[in-house]
Amino acid sequence: MTVIAADLSAWLDTRRRDVEDALERYVPATGREPGLVWEAMRYSLMAGGKRLRPLLAIAAAEGVAERDARDIDAARQAAMPAACALELIHTYSLVHDDLPAMDDDVLRRGRPTAHVVYGEGLAILAGDALLTEAFALLAREPSAANPAMAERKVATIAIVAEAAGATGMVGGQAIDLRAAVSGGHALDADGLRDMHARKTGALIRASALAGAVMAGASADAMQAVGAFGGQLGLAFQIVDDILDVEGASADLGKTAGKDAAAGKPTYPSLYGLEASRALAQECAGRALEALRSAGITGQLPALAQWVVGRRN
Amino acid sequence: MTVIAADLSAWLDTRRRDVEDALERYVPATGREPGLVWEAMRYSLMAGGKRLRPLLAIAAAEGVAERDARDIDAARQAAMPAACALELIHTYSLVHDDLPAMDDDVLRRGRPTAHVVYGEGLAILAGDALLTEAFALLAREPSAANPAMAERKVATIAIVAEAAGATGMVGGQAIDLRAAVSGGHALDADGLRDMHARKTGALIRASALAGAVMAGASADAMQAVGAFGGQLGLAFQIVDDILDVEGASADLGKTAGKDAAAGKPTYPSLYGLEASRALAQECAGRALEALRSAGITGQLPALAQWVVGRRN
Repeated sequence: MTVIAADLSAWLDTRRRDVEDALERYVPATGREPGLVWEAMRYSLMAGGKRLRPLLAIAAAEGVAERDARDIDAARQAAMPAACALELIHTYSLVHDDLPAMDDDVLRRGRPTAHVVYGEGLAILAGDALLTEAFALLAREPSAANPAMAERKVATIAIVAEAAGATGMVGGQAIDLRAAVSGGHALDADGLRDMHARKTGALIRASALAGAVMAGASADAMQAVGAFGGQLGLAFQIVDDILDVEGASADLGKTAGKDAAAGKPTYPSLYGLEASRALAQECAGRALEALRSAGITGQLPALAQWVVGRRN
Repeated sequence: MTVIAADLSAWLDTRRRDVEDALERYVPATGREPGLVWEAMRYSLMAGGKRLRPLLAIAAAEGVAERDARDIDAARQAAMPAACALELIHTYSLVHDDLPAMDDDVLRRGRPTAHVVYGEGLAILAGDALLTEAFALLAREPSAANPAMAERKVATIAIVAEAAGATGMVGGQAIDLRAAVSGGHALDADGLRDMHARKTGALIRASALAGAVMAGASADAMQAVGAFGGQLGLAFQIVDDILDVEGASADLGKTAGKDAAAGKPTYPSLYGLEASRALAQECAGRALEALRSAGITGQLPALAQWVVGRRN
């Protein structure tokens, strides 16, 4: 599973390049004032990363278009602003989570974290700006020739905001923060799953859903993509926990073993490594089944297997 | 000008109560998980405050509806979610600006600031959550029976996100932060105006515009409301600077004299008190003229005079 299938590999190369190009257009290096904020936003945004959330949005858009025999290129283009908005939101969450008052991390994507480079104040503001710009992008692009596009945008913004906000990602980080303060003893297995479902799972699920909505998915396709995204989010976090235990900092591009050292509960600490790996596979299996039952193909299934098999 | 006209006073009482009720509905005390984030959000959100931005949105909605002989109650109801979203965004900006890494303030709206009560980590997260929930609210409410409503919502989200983001409010705070670090010597009169136009003016202007858009304003009404909001934002900040010099902490509900003590440039420090007062009146005059020339009446003009005449 760590070997990437040949056509997924080519797809990943092409679509990642599309995402990087689009991010360059949406958050350009020049021409935006004041320059210090945009520079700090770009420092964290253009530092590489897997671009998993944008890729999920694009693959979901392609998948529902393919199933319904509609124009795949058009679906991908319609989903691209949402795909990039999700990367902005993911990046903001990393910038804020790395702050001294949160996880206090100095290394991210192989580089010093934003607050190390720009100071805490500007790092907080760069995060705020990335989050806000994500919604500007979702509302602005693609500019609507199609009158149905306004309704898709509104639905996408609602999905993304719910997933990123107090009941979703921010709520998960708050639970994580409180658990760390109490030495990790506040969370049992259910609590751990709930925390991760909010902190990581919600935005991964929203990424797939956002791509599907922007591509004009029908209600049954939406339900399948939502189920897929929920299971994939869970699998992603279990693998993340496994890599945190196994990995070296250089491979991960961030400080490894940190969660365990902080006394935070992880899947391996609760279930052991082998059972955690099996659990991740089970979730991936349910994710694929959701797609299969709705007849959604394309790169989305391969992408799910890549997520579970990844080494960093 | 410090005396509030009788009908404005009654309008303020009624509409403020509407806003408080709506905020209670949109950010309820119970029923949202995880409770610790929602509690921290409410701590700052429900601490009173003038509710100027919601009131501007509502008054603008009423004003354009009245001019175009449309249903004023319907316009007000359509604008209420946007009005509340703007208060969530304003509140998030206060929570983040008060952080030790920014203005390091311990008193706000007469109470200890969020990070004093909840710690820095949760205060950052509560701010993030308020900002994100604002966009959820803008996308979700009012639920669309009217198919034109999706287009209004998208337009409103774009306006609000641009005003709150990197080129607007966040950008202004970044300029302010850098100026404070350099002892205030980085800003001349033009730089001060630019900083305030972003930091405070942009969201005040967006408040009036958001109310107008949600009420279905025509292009000429939008232009007038935009010009009004721009001038009012400038006047608001000049008065704020004057009150910071003159005021006592108890009246303001925040630490007075702080900007001057920090060596930050202010309108009184650059122009003197009397010239600053005259400047605020000029801006208010231009704001009123913009409304008059477009035939927009209602409470919006009185609200502008209240802003300039306010004592806290």
